[in-house]
Amino acid sequence: MQENLNNYIKDKKEAIHKELIRYLEDLVIPDKLKESMLYSVKAGGKRLRPVLLLAAYEAYGDNTQKALTSAIALEFIHTYSLIHDDLPAMDNDDYRRGKPTNHKEFNEATAILAGDALLTYSFEVISNDPLLNDTQKVNLIKALSYSSGPNGMVGGQMLDMHAENLPITLTELEEIHTHKTGELLRFAIYAGAYLGKATSEQLSYLKDFAYYLGLIFQVQDDILDITGDPDKIGKPVGSDEGNQKSTYPKLLGLEGAVEQKNSYVMKAKEALKKANAEHSYLMQLTDFFSQRDH
Amino acid sequence: MQENLNNYIKDKKEAIHKELIRYLEDLVIPDKLKESMLYSVKAGGKRLRPVLLLAAYEAYGDNTQKALTSAIALEFIHTYSLIHDDLPAMDNDDYRRGKPTNHKEFNEATAILAGDALLTYSFEVISNDPLLNDTQKVNLIKALSYSSGPNGMVGGQMLDMHAENLPITLTELEEIHTHKTGELLRFAIYAGAYLGKATSEQLSYLKDFAYYLGLIFQVQDDILDITGDPDKIGKPVGSDEGNQKSTYPKLLGLEGAVEQKNSYVMKAKEALKKANAEHSYLMQLTDFFSQRDH
Repeated sequence: MQENLNNYIKDKKEAIHKELIRYLEDLVIPDKLKESMLYSVKAGGKRLRPVLLLAAYEAYGDNTQKALTSAIALEFIHTYSLIHDDLPAMDNDDYRRGKPTNHKEFNEATAILAGDALLTYSFEVISNDPLLNDTQKVNLIKALSYSSGPNGMVGGQMLDMHAENLPITLTELEEIHTHKTGELLRFAIYAGAYLGKATSEQLSYLKDFAYYLGLIFQVQDDILDITGDPDKIGKPVGSDEGNQKSTYPKLLGLEGAVEQKNSYVMKAKEALKKANAEHSYLMQLTDFFSQRDH
Repeated sequence: MQENLNNYIKDKKEAIHKELIRYLEDLVIPDKLKESMLYSVKAGGKRLRPVLLLAAYEAYGDNTQKALTSAIALEFIHTYSLIHDDLPAMDNDDYRRGKPTNHKEFNEATAILAGDALLTYSFEVISNDPLLNDTQKVNLIKALSYSSGPNGMVGGQMLDMHAENLPITLTELEEIHTHKTGELLRFAIYAGAYLGKATSEQLSYLKDFAYYLGLIFQVQDDILDITGDPDKIGKPVGSDEGNQKSTYPKLLGLEGAVEQKNSYVMKAKEALKKANAEHSYLMQLTDFFSQRDH
């Protein structure tokens, strides 16, 4: 089963990578801009969000091509957010996944513009997809702009910035994460299932699923910062401890964080069953998210 | 006639301003983010782009409400581009229209996020407009993402950055401007006329009109940098001369630049006549663009 999942992820990642590059190579734009967009998109790692989107599609639909541009758009948005987050004025990171960050490889102005370009292009890609009808395009754009904009990811990033160096409750921590990382995961699940023609009842249970999946993702991130292998996670362990960042282990202890994660996994799987998706790869991906080592 | 035009612009500006604020006030998002988005949107000056969009609509259609969200979205995009352009890594401007730039009033991270949020929200606003059908929404989003993204404004910004301190031809200069400022003007004209149900032949002539209008806008900008009143243009005159920036007066002389502008005005008006828009405010707006003193 695990072997199957690994192959599944590998296949999807390859398809997504190929399509991401194709969409960028097709652009007739200034060389440096294209180079800079391609640099960060190629450096992309796990492609978790687009893989989830395709798995959510395949839980209900049978022509995966239909979900591909949404997966591409989502990964463009994720990539732009990393480029901007890494900027000196934000997290000021010099390396990401062992390579220089975009503004280190190029320069800050180029990194800002490459991020802006990827963000904008993601909506262009959906609006031009010949496999989707106009209603599908509008619903996807509505959901993606909501999840990635001020109501979603950007809002979460703002909350996160202001929470640094402040004491914080578990409820506040969850609010930051549901916006900052959860909203894009929610989009991944929604977009895939919506295009696969899930019913509105199924979509409603999947919303719960996505909510817990986002929290699982974040708790595991915090746990890896303590117990992870620095070579695998691509950054030194203990980096959260040095700063004042609020994390689950800090609030609940390491054991408490693991327990919390397991209760989220249970709730996520319950929601999947109610959404009639218990035989899809989403079930295994939930464990994969919970147990990932990087 | 001039009095009429001034009233027309004043009315439209007020309607646009009110609507811009309403769309932002409606957001339930982190306070600082909202404050920062509102700050730059309120500081907005001439609202040329949305006024043009509404005038293009009214050349053909009779329910201006239908064009309002496109005008709002366009102004959000324009505002985001100013916020990002002013950043230290880009133009490094401390003031805009006599007020501190966004990153000076807040901080760089907030300015980056406010720009990202306005950009993303512009697509959300269009996708949620109850007055438009799905095909209209998709066509607007297609055009807006093209005009503002790597193919359009962001691409132009990149070309402009690389052209600094380099010798440049008139053709290269025009290429920069048609991308950097021209594309959004083109969107303004297209979106308004499209929603007003202009024919495809009319739209095609309007494309020419928008092209010349963009050039008029830029030539006049360059001329004002030499002959303008610093109090009116909101920056010291002669700022282009000090740096290596390519401008029309530098390439053609001041008199040559004025001649060039006048020939663009003639071509713009010819295109308007062919598009059956010679009795619309677009005619007068062309002169207004050409003769503006700030």
